[in-house]
Amino acid sequence: MITLWELEGRGGRRYSLFSWRTRMALAHKALEFETRPVRMSDKAAIAFSGGKTVPVIKRGDTVVRDSWAIADYLEGTFPENTLFGGDIGRGLCYSFNTWVDRAVVPAMLPLVVADIHERVDPADDAFFRQMMEGFVKMRLEDTRAQREPGLKRLAAILAPMQATLKRQAYLCGAAPAYADYILFSVFQWARVMSPQEVLAPEDPLCAWRERLLDLFGGFARNVAVA
Amino acid sequence: MITLWELEGRGGRRYSLFSWRTRMALAHKALEFETRPVRMSDKAAIAFSGGKTVPVIKRGDTVVRDSWAIADYLEGTFPENTLFGGDIGRGLCYSFNTWVDRAVVPAMLPLVVADIHERVDPADDAFFRQMMEGFVKMRLEDTRAQREPGLKRLAAILAPMQATLKRQAYLCGAAPAYADYILFSVFQWARVMSPQEVLAPEDPLCAWRERLLDLFGGFARNVAVA
Repeated sequence: MITLWELEGRGGRRYSLFSWRTRMALAHKALEFETRPVRMSDKAAIAFSGGKTVPVIKRGDTVVRDSWAIADYLEGTFPENTLFGGDIGRGLCYSFNTWVDRAVVPAMLPLVVADIHERVDPADDAFFRQMMEGFVKMRLEDTRAQREPGLKRLAAILAPMQATLKRQAYLCGAAPAYADYILFSVFQWARVMSPQEVLAPEDPLCAWRERLLDLFGGFARNVAVA
Repeated sequence: MITLWELEGRGGRRYSLFSWRTRMALAHKALEFETRPVRMSDKAAIAFSGGKTVPVIKRGDTVVRDSWAIADYLEGTFPENTLFGGDIGRGLCYSFNTWVDRAVVPAMLPLVVADIHERVDPADDAFFRQMMEGFVKMRLEDTRAQREPGLKRLAAILAPMQATLKRQAYLCGAAPAYADYILFSVFQWARVMSPQEVLAPEDPLCAWRERLLDLFGGFARNVAVA
């Protein structure tokens, strides 16, 4: 059995975007796991991992932290249902992971951060505000007035993936793999914590997101959401 | 034997960025090929391909056009020295190809287009100007005054790849593969046709580009350049 430590917000919402990468990787490999909710401000709860952020997984005596390291560990330990499809796929997926973290996440954050703040555990309220206001360089409430340009910025960054999904069902081709889960995690983070839609209904990313929500018996769909 | 049709500029410069993807793919697979220079405005020279753009390759009776279709054909026909590393790598590489074409190429174009114009075949001068001024929405000469913001825009788009290359030698991991050649083609296009450097010497992309120039006995280094 594998144990996953991940953030929990109000109403049982599991909202860590990086933990969603791990969740989807575990589901992709058909591995059973149990979860341990963590508050963002409660660093003591995951101090055993040697780090300060989730996801963390534990299997037997093995502890692995950081979503990329976890994906790598799972791929090495459970080769069936490959996440990367070999060395080239793994290397390019790492490049893609970096693009999502440095281009897509910063574009999504201002669109959802105020909604997320309203749904974090009350004990995380001040911690979350301080950290996130450092990222967005304004009061969380003021991000709402920037929504229109923010949506345009996100759409511009995502345009190449929209074009890709007109030609193939998943970012990894005919079937989903870890790179799909990496980008999906950003949309799932938004979906779990924000009632606002960031995609137009005709956007190919919308249909792709639906396909990912359907995977593994509705694994990502059937969770507490905003 | 494989024949490749590609653009030729003044001084024998082979400058088609998309043809450089094919060139690197052919070298990666250790396939011999001969080239046929084409002028950009000479659509009749490649009409046999059914399209209006290079690269085009011919092997026996088989004609393939479009750099992605050519890579796919080569991978299917010559499985050794894989370009994609399997289905997942191929699918994700297509996503990456789309990102380079829609995000990186438009950011590089204004930085080099005036220099390229000075080096195209004289017979292509007016054709090139008309087409490129449609893309950049200004006179080619006026792009030079936009160089500083243009360099910043390119650097922002490339930042995730710079970060990636601090952690692994190539975009595809420990060894280069087709996704590396896709991004490299944009830098080689600039290198062949523009005397101006677009990367800072400490940029990890610089060392990566040097590694690519060294591949296959200096295959991409030892060509006519600006």
